[in-house]
Amino acid sequence: MTSAEPGGDDPGPRSAPPPADLGLLSPMRGAAEATGDAAVLRAMLDAEAALARAQAGLGLIPHEAATVITTAASAGARDGLFDLSALVVRARSGGNPVIPLVEDLRVAARPYGEHVHAGATSQDILDTALMLVVARARGPILAELEQVIARLTALAAAHRDTVMAARTLTQQAVPTTFGLKAAGWRGLARDARDRLAAVMLPAQLGGPAGTLEQGAGLPGRYAAELGLAEPVLPWHVLRTPIADLGGALAFTSGALGKLAADVLVLSRTEIGELSEGVGGGSSSMPHKHNPARATMIAAAARQVPALAAILYGSLAAEDERPAGAWHAEWQPLREAVRLVAGAVHDAAELLADLRVHPDRMRANLRLTGTPGSAAELVDRALKEE
Amino acid sequence: MTSAEPGGDDPGPRSAPPPADLGLLSPMRGAAEATGDAAVLRAMLDAEAALARAQAGLGLIPHEAATVITTAASAGARDGLFDLSALVVRARSGGNPVIPLVEDLRVAARPYGEHVHAGATSQDILDTALMLVVARARGPILAELEQVIARLTALAAAHRDTVMAARTLTQQAVPTTFGLKAAGWRGLARDARDRLAAVMLPAQLGGPAGTLEQGAGLPGRYAAELGLAEPVLPWHVLRTPIADLGGALAFTSGALGKLAADVLVLSRTEIGELSEGVGGGSSSMPHKHNPARATMIAAAARQVPALAAILYGSLAAEDERPAGAWHAEWQPLREAVRLVAGAVHDAAELLADLRVHPDRMRANLRLTGTPGSAAELVDRALKEE
Amino acid sequence: MTSAEPGGDDPGPRSAPPPADLGLLSPMRGAAEATGDAAVLRAMLDAEAALARAQAGLGLIPHEAATVITTAASAGARDGLFDLSALVVRARSGGNPVIPLVEDLRVAARPYGEHVHAGATSQDILDTALMLVVARARGPILAELEQVIARLTALAAAHRDTVMAARTLTQQAVPTTFGLKAAGWRGLARDARDRLAAVMLPAQLGGPAGTLEQGAGLPGRYAAELGLAEPVLPWHVLRTPIADLGGALAFTSGALGKLAADVLVLSRTEIGELSEGVGGGSSSMPHKHNPARATMIAAAARQVPALAAILYGSLAAEDERPAGAWHAEWQPLREAVRLVAGAVHDAAELLADLRVHPDRMRANLRLTGTPGSAAELVDRALKEE
Amino acid sequence: MTSAEPGGDDPGPRSAPPPADLGLLSPMRGAAEATGDAAVLRAMLDAEAALARAQAGLGLIPHEAATVITTAASAGARDGLFDLSALVVRARSGGNPVIPLVEDLRVAARPYGEHVHAGATSQDILDTALMLVVARARGPILAELEQVIARLTALAAAHRDTVMAARTLTQQAVPTTFGLKAAGWRGLARDARDRLAAVMLPAQLGGPAGTLEQGAGLPGRYAAELGLAEPVLPWHVLRTPIADLGGALAFTSGALGKLAADVLVLSRTEIGELSEGVGGGSSSMPHKHNPARATMIAAAARQVPALAAILYGSLAAEDERPAGAWHAEWQPLREAVRLVAGAVHDAAELLADLRVHPDRMRANLRLTGTPGSAAELVDRALKEE
Repeated sequence: MTSAEPGGDDPGPRSAPPPADLGLLSPMRGAAEATGDAAVLRAMLDAEAALARAQAGLGLIPHEAATVITTAASAGARDGLFDLSALVVRARSGGNPVIPLVEDLRVAARPYGEHVHAGATSQDILDTALMLVVARARGPILAELEQVIARLTALAAAHRDTVMAARTLTQQAVPTTFGLKAAGWRGLARDARDRLAAVMLPAQLGGPAGTLEQGAGLPGRYAAELGLAEPVLPWHVLRTPIADLGGALAFTSGALGKLAADVLVLSRTEIGELSEGVGGGSSSMPHKHNPARATMIAAAARQVPALAAILYGSLAAEDERPAGAWHAEWQPLREAVRLVAGAVHDAAELLADLRVHPDRMRANLRLTGTPGSAAELVDRALKEE
Repeated sequence: MTSAEPGGDDPGPRSAPPPADLGLLSPMRGAAEATGDAAVLRAMLDAEAALARAQAGLGLIPHEAATVITTAASAGARDGLFDLSALVVRARSGGNPVIPLVEDLRVAARPYGEHVHAGATSQDILDTALMLVVARARGPILAELEQVIARLTALAAAHRDTVMAARTLTQQAVPTTFGLKAAGWRGLARDARDRLAAVMLPAQLGGPAGTLEQGAGLPGRYAAELGLAEPVLPWHVLRTPIADLGGALAFTSGALGKLAADVLVLSRTEIGELSEGVGGGSSSMPHKHNPARATMIAAAARQVPALAAILYGSLAAEDERPAGAWHAEWQPLREAVRLVAGAVHDAAELLADLRVHPDRMRANLRLTGTPGSAAELVDRALKEE
Repeated sequence: MTSAEPGGDDPGPRSAPPPADLGLLSPMRGAAEATGDAAVLRAMLDAEAALARAQAGLGLIPHEAATVITTAASAGARDGLFDLSALVVRARSGGNPVIPLVEDLRVAARPYGEHVHAGATSQDILDTALMLVVARARGPILAELEQVIARLTALAAAHRDTVMAARTLTQQAVPTTFGLKAAGWRGLARDARDRLAAVMLPAQLGGPAGTLEQGAGLPGRYAAELGLAEPVLPWHVLRTPIADLGGALAFTSGALGKLAADVLVLSRTEIGELSEGVGGGSSSMPHKHNPARATMIAAAARQVPALAAILYGSLAAEDERPAGAWHAEWQPLREAVRLVAGAVHDAAELLADLRVHPDRMRANLRLTGTPGSAAELVDRALKEE
Repeated sequence: MTSAEPGGDDPGPRSAPPPADLGLLSPMRGAAEATGDAAVLRAMLDAEAALARAQAGLGLIPHEAATVITTAASAGARDGLFDLSALVVRARSGGNPVIPLVEDLRVAARPYGEHVHAGATSQDILDTALMLVVARARGPILAELEQVIARLTALAAAHRDTVMAARTLTQQAVPTTFGLKAAGWRGLARDARDRLAAVMLPAQLGGPAGTLEQGAGLPGRYAAELGLAEPVLPWHVLRTPIADLGGALAFTSGALGKLAADVLVLSRTEIGELSEGVGGGSSSMPHKHNPARATMIAAAARQVPALAAILYGSLAAEDERPAGAWHAEWQPLREAVRLVAGAVHDAAELLADLRVHPDRMRANLRLTGTPGSAAELVDRALKEE
C-alpha cells in the first residue's frame, strides 16, 4: 500500500510513505498503464515464461517445468505475488532488477526453479521486456495517431478555402489558408506515424556474452512466443532498436510540437484565430481559457529530443555489455514513450474540439494584406494516402 | 494500495493495476523518499499552509483560518487524506496539479476554505514546492558528498606514494601515483559540493502575473515560514534557480562520473588495480565480480547533462508564464536530483570499500616504464581546505 | 592563401587576420571541401540558377535571362566573384545570407537582374542549398561507409574462429570470437548506411509563405534541375528532412562509436588485443602509440547526438517561418555532417590497417576462462546482404 | 585575401577553394576575430612562448632561447609564418594541432628549437590556448553585457508605469507594466554577467601525465606570464573550467533568450507593443519588418544548451587523458562562446533602438482587462546593484 492511498484498512504505523510516483510532475505523460513498473515486471515475467516454453518445445527442459514457470509468472504478475517494492530495493546491489526477480521466480516455480532463466542473462530478459512494453504501448499510440491524422484530414478539407495570414518571423506575410496549415500538420503526423510504426522491436536472447546462436532454434521460438521480431545477432551492444526508437519518438514529439506551436500562437488573446474547446483552468483566474492541451504537447516536445540524445549516445558502448551505457537507456526510453503517448493523446483531444474562427482570420488579415488562396496545395497534400 | 502490492485484503476486482513507479528502471536513483510524488504533495501543502500563516501574520486572513488550513494540510500530508492518484488524473485537464489540490484543500479546511490559496497562482505553489523538495533532498546529498570527500582525502593521503602508471589515450604514459588520482577525484567532488551548495533556493510568490510586491511584506514572511530564500522579483519567468540547479547537478554527476570512469578502467580483469569491495552479481555468472557502483554512477553521468540541457532551454520562456517551458522543467529537475542523489550514494558506498592493489599497479607499470612519483602534488592538493 | 596566412605578396597593412576557420579545433571532421562556406555559396548560386532555368522552361522568364543568370552564378562560384567575407558581414542584418547574395547576383546578371530569385524566398534558396550540400557530401560518405563494411566483412570472416574473451561490465565473461565482434560492428555500419542513404533530400520552393503550388510545374522542374526530390508540400516548417538527417547522422556517429569504443578498450597497454597500424603521435612522448583514429571517432560520437537534439527540437516551429528554430538548424546540421564524414573516414583508415593479436586474445582469456566459440553466429551475420 | 575570394592577383588555377568557414551558416555568431583559427594559433604560440620565458626565469633554459622562441612565436602569429592550412591537415594524424605546431616552432626558433615545448604535453598548450581565447573573448562580451544591463536599467526606469497586459499560457491575465518586464530581463542579464565573470580560467601545465608540481615554481610563472589563474592541480582530467564555462554560456544564452522570446511575441503584427528599430529585411517582401535581432538571439538560445551538455558530458573522462572526451570539447566550447558573443551583441543592438508602443499596450489591454500597476516591483528590482 503506498502513501498515496492510505486507506482505513491500514492498521499499522508508517514512518514514511513509500516513494511511488504516479505522475504528479508530468501531467503531459500518457501510456501510464502500459509503461508502469507493474507493466515492466509483467513483461519480464512474460519473457521468462516464453523462454521456458521455447526451451521445452526444443526438449531442453521438461514441458512440466515450462507449464509451472508460465503459471507462476502469470499468476505472479496478475496477483502481485512479486513484491515490486522489494525488487526495486534489491535491484540496487547488482544494478539490475532481473537478478532478484529470477530468485523469486525460482522459488515460485518450485520444484522446477532450476529451469528458470536457463542459459539467459539479465540483459536478455530486460531488453526483451522493454521491447514488449514498447510494443504494447505502441499499438494504442499508433491508433490514436491515426485519429489525429483523420481529424487533420477533415480539418484541412473543411478549411481548404479559409483564408488567413501566413506569418514569417512573427510578422504577417502574404495570405495562406488554414487548410494548408492543417495539411502541413497532417503531413508531419503521417511522417511520425510512419517512423514510429517502422521501428523493429526484436526479442533479445544472447546468453551471458551474446554468443547464443540465433536462427531456427531457441531465439526464434522465444521471439515467436512473444510476438517480437528475431534479430540477426544478439543486440546486447548493437543498439539499433533503442536508437531508432529514440529517433522516432523525438520525431513524433516534434511533429506534434509543430501543431502545438501554431495553436499556441493562434490562440493568443490578440490573435484569436483558434481556441481549444476545453481550455485549461487556472487556480487564480478561473475564467481564463488556456490552451492547455497545446501547452502539454509543447512541454513534451522540449523534453524528448534530449532523451533521444541519451539513447543515441548509448550506441557507443564498449565490450559485450557496457558499464553504464546500457543502464542509462531504460528510464529515458520509458519516459520518451510516455511523453509521446501523452502528446498524441493531447493532440487527439485538442483536435476533437478545436474551434476555428474564420472571422478573426479575415479580420487579422485585413491588418496588412489582401486575401489569396493556397487551396490547390491542400488538394495536393490530401491526395497523399 | 498500489498495483504492485495487491494483497489478500483487496476485495474487489481490478482490471489493471495502478501505474505507480517505484524506480524499477532506474536502480541508480537515490533520494526516493524526499522526491517522490508524496513528498511533492506534502511540499505543495506546506506551501499553502505557509501562505495562510504569512497572510494571517499580516492580518490578511483570520488566524483561525491559518490554523485550520495548516492543520488540514499537515494532516492531509501525514495521513494521506488527499487522493494522490486522483490528483494526478485531475491535473491533466489544466496541466497542473495545484488546481485540483486547491479544490481539495478548500474542502478540507472548511469553513475557511475561501482563505486557501488567496492571491496565489498555481505556479507560486508548485515552484515553491519544488524548491522545498530540492532543499530537503540537498541536505542529505551534501552530507553524503562530504563523506565522499572525506574518504577521498584519506585515500589520497594513504596512497601518496603508491606508484602506478598514468594512462593517456588508453596507453601507459609516465608513472603517477594513485594518491594523485584520488586527490583529483577529491578536487572534483569538492567543486561539486561547492556548486551544489551555492544554488539559491527561493520561495515563489508573485500572484497571477508575477506582480506581487516582494520585500518586507507577504513574500518575505512566506519564504521565512518555509526556510527558503526570498527573491528580488517573482521568478515565474526568471528561471535562474532552475538553470543553476541544472548546471550544478550536471556538474556533480560528471564529477563523480570521472571517479567512476577511472574505477571502471582500473577494475578491468586485465588491469586489476582496483576492485569494488562488494561487486555486483550476475544472473548468469554468479561468481563474476562487477563494478556495479561505478556502473551506476557512470549511467547517471550519461543522463544528467541532457536533463540539464532541457532546464537551460527553459530559460528562454515567453510571457509572464510560458506555455510549455515551465511544465517541461518539473520532471527533468526531479529526475536529475534523483540521479545525483544516487550517484553520490553509490560513490560513498564504493569508496567505503574500495580495494586498492598496489602490487598490480607496480606489475602493470613494469610493462612499459619505471616508477616515478607525484607525491608533492598530492600534498599540495590536500592542503586545499 | 588563406586569411590566416598573410604573406609577402600582401601589400597592405592588416590589423587582424580575417577570422576564417579551417578546422583547427576539429581534427575529427571530414567533408571539408563539400561543406565549406564556399560550397554552401556555390549551392545557393546553383539553386538560383536552377530556379531561373526552370522558370524559363515554363516561359515565365526569358531564356536569355536564365542563361545569363546561370552563367553569372557559375562563374561567380568558380572564380570567387562574390565576396564571401562581405556576404557573411552583410548577412548579419537580416540574419540570412540569401538577401545580400541576391543583391549581388542581380548586379552580376545584368541586364536580367530583375529575373533573379523571382517569386522565391530566402528560405527556398538556403534550404535547397543545404540539401545540395548534404547530397554532395553524402555520396562520398556512403562510398567510404561501404569500404568500412567491406573491411568489416573481411575481418569477421578472417577471424571467424579467433577466440577471445567476451567482457561484460568490464570483466571477462565467457569466451567469444573476434569475428563475432567484427560482425557486430559490421551490422551497425550497415544499419548506419541504410539509414543515411534512406533520408529523402528535397528541394524547397514555396515562395514567401510556402503557398507555391507543387506538382508538375515549377517546383518539379526546379527540383529536377538540381537532382533533388520534389516534396509534396513546401517544407518551410515541415522539417522532416532535417530531423531525419539529424537522426541518421547521430545513428552513424554512434554506430562507428561502438567500433571505436571497442578498439580503445582492446588497444589498452594491458590488453593489447588490437592496435591501430598507424598510431597517433605525442608531442611529449614520441614513441607512444596512441589509437588516434578511434579517439577521433569517439570524440565525434560524443558530439553528434547533442547536435541532433537541436535539429529534432526545431521541428516544433511556429508559423510559416519560425523566428529562431530555422536559423538554429544550419550550423549544427553542417557540423553533424562533417563529424560523421570524419568518423567514417577515420573508421576506414583504422580498418585499413588494424592489427589483430590473437596471441594476446588467447593469453588474456587464460586469465579467467577456457576457449569456446561463436563461429556459427559469424556465419549467420555474414549471410545478411 | 581569403580562400573564398581569389582575386585578380591569384595567377594560378585552383581546382577547389580551400574550405575556410567565415560564418556563412551562423549569422548569429560573434567574437569572430577573437575565436577564429588564427586567434587559436596565436594563443598556442603565446603559450609556448610563455613557457619558454617561465623556464628561462627559473634557469631551466637559456634566456637567449626564451627570447628567440618568443620572437619566433610572435612574428609567426603576426606575419602568418605558420601555415594554418597545413597545420589543420597535419593535425589529423595525431588528432591534435600542437604536435605539428611544435615541429614548426622548433624550426623557426633555431638554434634553440630543442628548448621549445620542453617538458610540456600537447594538452598543456591547447588547454591553455583555449583559456586564453576565452579570456580574450570574455572581456568584450562582458563589456557589451554591461551595455545591455545599462539599457535595460534605463528601459525599466522609463517604463516604470507603462501598463500592459501580463500574459500567461498565451492569454492575457492581469495587468503588469513594461518596466517590470524590462526589470526582469535586467535581472537575468545581471545573473548571466555574474556567472560568466565568475568562471575561473586557469593555465594548464602538467606535463605528459599531469604530474608536474604546481605552486611557486614553473606553473605559477607560466600562468602569470599569460595572465591566467594557476590551478591547484593540473586539470587535464579535472575539467571544472570547461564545465563551468558550459554552464555559464548556456545560462547567458538562455537569459538573453528570455528577452528575445518576449520581443518576438510583443512584435507580432497583431500585438505590436514592441518593434525593433532596424528590422531585418526579406528577400521576397522588402518592406516587411522582421525582429531579426531577437530571432538571432532565439536561434543561439536553442543551440548553446546542447553544446553545454557535451561539455558537461566530458567531465566523466577516463585516465590521465581521455580518448575522445577531451577532443570533443574544443569545437563545442568555441561555438558556444561565439553564439553567446553574438547574442550579447544582438541584444545590445536590439536594445539600442527598441521601439516601445505604450498606446498599443493600452489598446491590447482593453481587450480583456483594466489597468493595474507593478511599479513598486520595478523600484525594488532596480535597487539591486
